[in-house]
Amino acid sequence: IQSKLPGVNTTIFSVMSKIAAEYNAINLSQGFPDYSCDPKLIELVNKAMKEGFNQYAPMPGSIFLKETIAEKVEKLYNIRYNPDTEITVTAGGTQAIFTALASIINAGDEVIIFEPAYDSYAPTVRLLGGLVKTYELAPPDYGIDWDMVKKLFTVKTRMIILNSPQNPTGSILSSDDMKSLIKLVSGTDIVILSDEVYEHLIYDGQTHQSVMSYPELRQRSFVVASFGKLLHATGWKLGYCLAPEDLTKEFRKVHQFNVFSVNSPMQQAIAEYIKEPKNYTEIGSFFQMKRDYFRNLLAESRFKLLPCNGSYFQCASYSSISDEKDSDFSIRLVKEFGVATIPVSAFYQKATDHKIIRFCFAKENDTLAKAAEKLKNV
Amino acid sequence: IQSKLPGVNTTIFSVMSKIAAEYNAINLSQGFPDYSCDPKLIELVNKAMKEGFNQYAPMPGSIFLKETIAEKVEKLYNIRYNPDTEITVTAGGTQAIFTALASIINAGDEVIIFEPAYDSYAPTVRLLGGLVKTYELAPPDYGIDWDMVKKLFTVKTRMIILNSPQNPTGSILSSDDMKSLIKLVSGTDIVILSDEVYEHLIYDGQTHQSVMSYPELRQRSFVVASFGKLLHATGWKLGYCLAPEDLTKEFRKVHQFNVFSVNSPMQQAIAEYIKEPKNYTEIGSFFQMKRDYFRNLLAESRFKLLPCNGSYFQCASYSSISDEKDSDFSIRLVKEFGVATIPVSAFYQKATDHKIIRFCFAKENDTLAKAAEKLKNV
Ligand SMILES: CSCCC(=O)C(=O)O
Ligand SMILES: CSCCC(=O)C(=O)O
Repeated sequence: IQSKLPGVNTTIFSVMSKIAAEYNAINLSQGFPDYSCDPKLIELVNKAMKEGFNQYAPMPGSIFLKETIAEKVEKLYNIRYNPDTEITVTAGGTQAIFTALASIINAGDEVIIFEPAYDSYAPTVRLLGGLVKTYELAPPDYGIDWDMVKKLFTVKTRMIILNSPQNPTGSILSSDDMKSLIKLVSGTDIVILSDEVYEHLIYDGQTHQSVMSYPELRQRSFVVASFGKLLHATGWKLGYCLAPEDLTKEFRKVHQFNVFSVNSPMQQAIAEYIKEPKNYTEIGSFFQMKRDYFRNLLAESRFKLLPCNGSYFQCASYSSISDEKDSDFSIRLVKEFGVATIPVSAFYQKATDHKIIRFCFAKENDTLAKAAEKLKNV
Repeated sequence: IQSKLPGVNTTIFSVMSKIAAEYNAINLSQGFPDYSCDPKLIELVNKAMKEGFNQYAPMPGSIFLKETIAEKVEKLYNIRYNPDTEITVTAGGTQAIFTALASIINAGDEVIIFEPAYDSYAPTVRLLGGLVKTYELAPPDYGIDWDMVKKLFTVKTRMIILNSPQNPTGSILSSDDMKSLIKLVSGTDIVILSDEVYEHLIYDGQTHQSVMSYPELRQRSFVVASFGKLLHATGWKLGYCLAPEDLTKEFRKVHQFNVFSVNSPMQQAIAEYIKEPKNYTEIGSFFQMKRDYFRNLLAESRFKLLPCNGSYFQCASYSSISDEKDSDFSIRLVKEFGVATIPVSAFYQKATDHKIIRFCFAKENDTLAKAAEKLKNV
């Protein structure tokens, strides 16, 4: 069999979670909570199943949920997306990303991505025959020089993928970034895929810069959001994609043949749950406390903490501890110290190694404290 | 925006279900039950959520579920698939089909499909840059002349898609079909995608001919199965794909970037539920009774019933009633008679019209009786 993704192996998240389990390590690698979601939300799923929401949901999503999403988005960003024509419920953020790419990228199209990046972007583009143009960001700030981005533009540039707050670095885009981006894309037909799954996880009073807030960007953007991240239920695999009507039309053409529709009782339950804004508005301060707690604990370690402005990831440099490649170092962390992390080189196609690892702090304080105890011995 | 699927509209299943709702018609169009799944199964989901199965399941599927699938398949087909390397849990049968195609089809590859066919096959192949070679089957038997299939073969033939029991015709492949197919593919590297989502819905004592039962076919096949169809819970969007290790490896490369993983608590619940074979072994006779009940009711109508050997679809000719195109006739059936069906031309890329419509009989007997009353007036 001729592989369509010859260089690709099992994603790092599966690899590290598996090793973590094998060595009975504390798992700060893959991004998911080690506590459960709100029991009220579980009860709502149970209720929806009992009420009979067990057959196909409408292909673009439950009408109730799409309406609730529209209300939530309007409240947050002061923009109304039309539930009928601009909102599609997906089987998680990753499926929304895949489907958006599949609906737009033709063979030979170029897609600009910023690395380190979530590891699905580049292989998905390549699977579709697209070419990845990579801009490598560097620690500690992972800032973007937009003049450098401009140099990546060609007549073939079809899309730019944004991700703020960013996985894995926790960096965020500023309003200046957005303005520079607007200048770059104005007058072109470049499409933006804006992965905003961590939109609520933004700290220290800063504001999430969504493409939705900038008409020039919004009109050309797929925006991807995740209920898994929002509601501490990553295993339910629910998310959504917002896009203007012309983009949504193409998105749904692919969506209907990819997954057709998504989990019906859980859509119903989530709609009822997020109708109450208080069920999700606290999530930013919730995770800010976890970030601070974890950073304080690690202050006594030999790791050098990078800034974390958003997401539930904390990056740290170990260059004062070891010269090892980050992939080797993170394996050793599991085996010798019982803590699983993600080597940040896994987020670069070229495996660029800045001697940095990523911790997920979406964990019980107790878990974080135990992990920190072990990390202090490193 | 240049569409990647220019000829494609919203799938007929969404269109007809929507019209059915608008006109408050009895919906015998899209293939889903109008009754709920087993309350025991719902209780198991509730239990799994409460036990904390709310975060990412392993990428290829819950270990417990994959093991249970392996046992079920072994019991039914006397073949052991390795849960670690040959079974992947998917977000429904459709996602398994999409992902199998995406993992194998390169630009220019040819895929042979038999029409009428489930409407995702052809556009998905085209989306991936593949070419669809179509063999049109004809009523009333929709049988395959394998010499004609052979004529479709070229050096570019990469895959054949099978679907038995077939949607929408209810026809099934015989052991002679399988033998002819083996002769055709032996010595080639053609891959088979075998959509067996209706494997348990086979009637009158006949045996489902699975590619799994023929080593020459099994070694080159993706087999797609659906828990939605098996457990009367189409809205849960759970299914799986069986394939030998080399094919599964490619499948998972795409799967991990398409949906990453699938619904965790429902995987757990289904595993526990199907551990008890009695929870699904009755489904064949259950639907055979529905088929017989519905056929008997329609015997008094002017529709001419085609054979139905499997699936939960009954096709019928209306050529003695009207000359209209089946798309027009089925719309009129909704508006004037209050029954929604699917025009079988929707399953042909060329919209070939044999004046046949498809009824879904996965409905309460009461629903079927009410629909038949209306259909007798036609
Ligand atoms: C789909 S698993 C990976 C996503 C995530 O949360 C992570 O980066 O760890
Ligand atoms: C995914 S909806 C269509 C599948 C089906 O059951 C049908 O053919 O009606």
